[in-house]
Amino acid sequence: MKKHNIILQPSGSRGQVEEGMSVRSAARELGVEIESICAENATCGKCMVLIEEGRFEKYNIDSKRENVSPVTNEESAYFARRSKLLKDKGWEVGQVRLSCQCKIRGDVLINVPEESRGNKQIVRKSATNREIEVKPAIRKYLVSMTPPNLERPIADWERLAKGLETSMGLVRGSDEKLPRWYDLTVDYQCLRGLSSTLRAAKWNVTVSVWQDKEVIEVQAGYVEDSYGAAVDIGSTTVALYLCNLRTGEMLAAESEMNPQIVYGEDVMSRIQYTIEHKDGLEKLHKAIISTLNKLLKQAVKSANMSLRGTKQSPTGAEIASGKERPRNDIKIEDILEMVLVGNSTMHHILLNLNPKDLGLAPFVPAIHRSVDVKARELGLHINPSGNIHVLPTIASFVGADTSAMIVAEEPHMQDENWLLIDVGTNAELILGNRKRLLCTSTPTGPALEGAHVEYGMRAAPGAIERVNIDEKTLEPRYKIVGETEWNTGKAKGICGSAIIDSVAELFRAGIVDSRGKFKKDLNSARIRQGESGWEYIIAWADETSIGRDIPMTQQDVRQIQLAKAALFTAARTLLKRSGLESPDKIILAGGFGSYIDKEKAMLIGLIPDCELDKVYAVGNAAGDGARIALLNVEKRNEIDSVTRKVERFELPTDPEFQNQFMLATSFPHMSEPFPHIAHLIPNRVADPLAKNFMTK
Amino acid sequence: MKKHNIILQPSGSRGQVEEGMSVRSAARELGVEIESICAENATCGKCMVLIEEGRFEKYNIDSKRENVSPVTNEESAYFARRSKLLKDKGWEVGQVRLSCQCKIRGDVLINVPEESRGNKQIVRKSATNREIEVKPAIRKYLVSMTPPNLERPIADWERLAKGLETSMGLVRGSDEKLPRWYDLTVDYQCLRGLSSTLRAAKWNVTVSVWQDKEVIEVQAGYVEDSYGAAVDIGSTTVALYLCNLRTGEMLAAESEMNPQIVYGEDVMSRIQYTIEHKDGLEKLHKAIISTLNKLLKQAVKSANMSLRGTKQSPTGAEIASGKERPRNDIKIEDILEMVLVGNSTMHHILLNLNPKDLGLAPFVPAIHRSVDVKARELGLHINPSGNIHVLPTIASFVGADTSAMIVAEEPHMQDENWLLIDVGTNAELILGNRKRLLCTSTPTGPALEGAHVEYGMRAAPGAIERVNIDEKTLEPRYKIVGETEWNTGKAKGICGSAIIDSVAELFRAGIVDSRGKFKKDLNSARIRQGESGWEYIIAWADETSIGRDIPMTQQDVRQIQLAKAALFTAARTLLKRSGLESPDKIILAGGFGSYIDKEKAMLIGLIPDCELDKVYAVGNAAGDGARIALLNVEKRNEIDSVTRKVERFELPTDPEFQNQFMLATSFPHMSEPFPHIAHLIPNRVADPLAKNFMTK
Repeated sequence: MKKHNIILQPSGSRGQVEEGMSVRSAARELGVEIESICAENATCGKCMVLIEEGRFEKYNIDSKRENVSPVTNEESAYFARRSKLLKDKGWEVGQVRLSCQCKIRGDVLINVPEESRGNKQIVRKSATNREIEVKPAIRKYLVSMTPPNLERPIADWERLAKGLETSMGLVRGSDEKLPRWYDLTVDYQCLRGLSSTLRAAKWNVTVSVWQDKEVIEVQAGYVEDSYGAAVDIGSTTVALYLCNLRTGEMLAAESEMNPQIVYGEDVMSRIQYTIEHKDGLEKLHKAIISTLNKLLKQAVKSANMSLRGTKQSPTGAEIASGKERPRNDIKIEDILEMVLVGNSTMHHILLNLNPKDLGLAPFVPAIHRSVDVKARELGLHINPSGNIHVLPTIASFVGADTSAMIVAEEPHMQDENWLLIDVGTNAELILGNRKRLLCTSTPTGPALEGAHVEYGMRAAPGAIERVNIDEKTLEPRYKIVGETEWNTGKAKGICGSAIIDSVAELFRAGIVDSRGKFKKDLNSARIRQGESGWEYIIAWADETSIGRDIPMTQQDVRQIQLAKAALFTAARTLLKRSGLESPDKIILAGGFGSYIDKEKAMLIGLIPDCELDKVYAVGNAAGDGARIALLNVEKRNEIDSVTRKVERFELPTDPEFQNQFMLATSFPHMSEPFPHIAHLIPNRVADPLAKNFMTK
Repeated sequence: MKKHNIILQPSGSRGQVEEGMSVRSAARELGVEIESICAENATCGKCMVLIEEGRFEKYNIDSKRENVSPVTNEESAYFARRSKLLKDKGWEVGQVRLSCQCKIRGDVLINVPEESRGNKQIVRKSATNREIEVKPAIRKYLVSMTPPNLERPIADWERLAKGLETSMGLVRGSDEKLPRWYDLTVDYQCLRGLSSTLRAAKWNVTVSVWQDKEVIEVQAGYVEDSYGAAVDIGSTTVALYLCNLRTGEMLAAESEMNPQIVYGEDVMSRIQYTIEHKDGLEKLHKAIISTLNKLLKQAVKSANMSLRGTKQSPTGAEIASGKERPRNDIKIEDILEMVLVGNSTMHHILLNLNPKDLGLAPFVPAIHRSVDVKARELGLHINPSGNIHVLPTIASFVGADTSAMIVAEEPHMQDENWLLIDVGTNAELILGNRKRLLCTSTPTGPALEGAHVEYGMRAAPGAIERVNIDEKTLEPRYKIVGETEWNTGKAKGICGSAIIDSVAELFRAGIVDSRGKFKKDLNSARIRQGESGWEYIIAWADETSIGRDIPMTQQDVRQIQLAKAALFTAARTLLKRSGLESPDKIILAGGFGSYIDKEKAMLIGLIPDCELDKVYAVGNAAGDGARIALLNVEKRNEIDSVTRKVERFELPTDPEFQNQFMLATSFPHMSEPFPHIAHLIPNRVADPLAKNFMTK
């Protein structure tokens, strides 16, 4: 068979393909996907390409329009309907072709315009600013069948499956003795509606296929889009993102309080609730399911509000008739898949698995690997044949949210050693690179989030979010959420980032010593003995909206010391087990990481020493990871395989843990060199304990 | 690696295996399965074999006990506990070994006693008297795990799956990069109970695996048996067979009227009901599901009644303690699979698929291929994770019951051409051999079953079941169901077999002519003009329990003529399309076939000409086929593949159909030579129409 040289731009893919192959097939053979939804019938126009003419020295080929088969009648008809588009783009027929129709006859250089490229990309803004390829688990195929007659009364499913074989371009069954379409299966509930849909649709349907193997939806006529939802179930907040599975576009983001909060504020108290109440698990499970159903409804509504008035890509028939239809509203049954993440307790409760053993030694989840289950089994009101994918858990306290963080940040793809920290009431840590990943977790308490601190509050209007203290005058400056200027507005409390700031500044200004104790001999009205011990007044009563002085107390400082010691000891343990001095990069996930001043966090020893511009805050990495796994099915196998290899360490079993923890309560962590913030460490650090460590 | 010669008796399998291999593994390598359920831990004792000593000239080997590894401590302990068994059998330790423990060191001849053989066989009594290998879809494995601890807190599912890898002897995953156990999946509802079962069972469980890939049940401790149910859903009767999936033994057979009968007597009127009533399908579906649930309950009860008092095979621990436990009652959740068959309408209603298009041209089922669906999706009350397998349909009027008949009779395995006929209100016919199978169906009306015949009734006490008419005196002799002597008892009506007899005898005795018309000039009081035309009195009023003469009327004869013409034309069409004169064998399935006199059936032309001793009645072949598919999973793929290749013919589209049908109403079918019953055809056949055909 004669072969020709093909170059594909802009990817630059090239190779030899056989004469007579369609340009679309040739491109696929060279690894370039070109869109098509009409089963190569020259009606959808999604596969347009440009045949570039000229001598391309770099590739040593002469590319000519005559080197592909002539324009067919079907193509002429299609392009006649799209004359406006061709004029706008400045393309002429013959240069622009439908790649499903034109066949290779000689060497050509083909340009695949952005809109025709398969496997679309979305950009994720993060430490790495990576592009994510859109490769959803669900693909749609248009299938047109000859209606059955007395001579060929083949059953509906078999008729559809044979049509799908063509539309999907199936080339090989798992068993050579079987027809190729025989590997396809159909969801039982989808099968139930098949016969009536095929007839109502006059045998022209769009079929949604999950993972290239299971038919989960059959819709009348030509339907372009399906939808999916990515969900991050936090102990406090549940966030849902509705996405178009074809384009990757995010159409709505909704969130709600986790309704389980009435059964217990943290995971341990919710586990306890399920142990103490016979119907406890059922209650918690139903609560999250009904919240998810509510969020799904809200998201569909929001998406429809913003999409209303925009147009759907027209079909060939619509272009021909000149009637392009407005976009139909998205219906909740158009959502064909959900990907969910959450810590192990949220994971178990979502799946109605008893979480008891997550809370009892030896702390074992029911399952690590990812779970796929039909929406109808969980009572989630998307399409009943739709799939629910839950990412894998790594350990009892390192859940599917951490798996999602790995998906989002990809430490397993790096040569450098990255330290990922998801900070919350519990902190999960991942350290490593492509060769080895270690993980652990540690309770940090609620202090870092502003809870259990006397005037702590969430980062809402009125919250002090930044604090500086002058070393000489010991006077503070602060910034309030919602204000643009410093020291303006009325304060209501202190949020997490300002708590870190305050503690760091108290230490830097020499108001507390390296053991976190207030110095009692300083000359400032702000430092005084309050009702519950020594304190430093950040805002006087008349600067507040609550009419009371807002202090940082000895007790508050102590809370932060314990939290940061736990976090630091966990990080130090992983570094030690990896034989590393410090990580090449630190990635802080979660809302908390986005607001804190990383220099100050390092100054108090919350995170290990690292170049400051290698410390990144990435926001809701778990939510991003869920969205990536929703849009790119290959990431699911990848994370299953990565999590299987992650090495887990339980801190309490580490013999040095208690000792390390105690040392880590000091400012900064005195057993460690902190070169990157050394200039901030006050000269006044001179107490014997500190000195001892500094000279080590 | 050194190799040794192994002979296995009684199968005679032989070959070379590597030194050091266990006898059980070696046997498997040579295609001989030896039982084991304890994961080769020397506790279940199911894998006992005998090492035979001596020089076996035939195989040219010297077999010695020393050619396998010495008796282990575990074996000694086991055999000590079973001393009674060894004494009874006359075996000594060293001769008898646990094949999982002893390793090949040299040439040996091994005897595998009946009780140790895997893949047990059941014998099916039929035309072929074949042995059916028991290869159920569900296998049980004992898994003992190390409990989790803080050092190895691996999740419950992964711990179980790794244990299963050993117990199942998995050797290869589908993807070499994945661990072998990773191909195993777990049913979602089964997963929900996993954690509590593992802990309650102290990490010793019996796991039921479906198709070697999906875990569907985990039970505490050592559990030997699981159960399955095979069901034939007839339009009139539903029959259910409860079987032990390990031994193949049938434990109970139950039947009930099909409750759908109140919605319509035949399939067409039930389809009509679903079209005319909005909730029609739902009602019919629920009716059959609740009858199946009732039959399941009854079957479990019957099985427990007959099993009570028998003993279960003891575990090692039980043997050691001397306490062998009585068999536990079977619970309905111990049923892990059902295989169901029925005509296409019964198939659709069972699966809650709209049967509308089965009854409307072009008569298309929703699906041909077999369906697997979870019991819980259908509301069947076996184990909710259990599988429901429904055999494939072939056409709108050739359903899963015909597929089951093929499974039972295996025409596709023959060199001869067999004609299979399932006679009922509708008859399905299969003709062919291993190279080609053809099928068709034809409505035969209810006459052959005794309905719509004036005094027709089912084969119940009081029914005339046999009729002879003396050619000279024209007097009848008859036999009544329940009587041992002829012409005794009181008659109540005529059942199907006597109707065939009567028509054949009326013809043979010259009372009706070859066109089925009564001769009016015969000298007998029994032949008279009754209220609805000419008739022949089989029993006078004083011989009956109903006090009325029981006749065969002209109308009755006409009914049989139409029915037999339909059946004969269908058979003739298939023969013609196959280029055959007559089939090598005729197999009559269904209750009807078992009762009729095959010679008389041939005399009236109900079935084509064939050697009489090649005509077999096989009873409920559909039920047998369902049972075979339940017990042998390989038959399921086989029938799916066979049915895909069966060629379907619709009679009404055959151009010669009407003509053939008209000719076929005569006695015998006059366009055909009937050499095998020629001696019975009366000389008096002399009317012009008949003559015309006889001389052809």
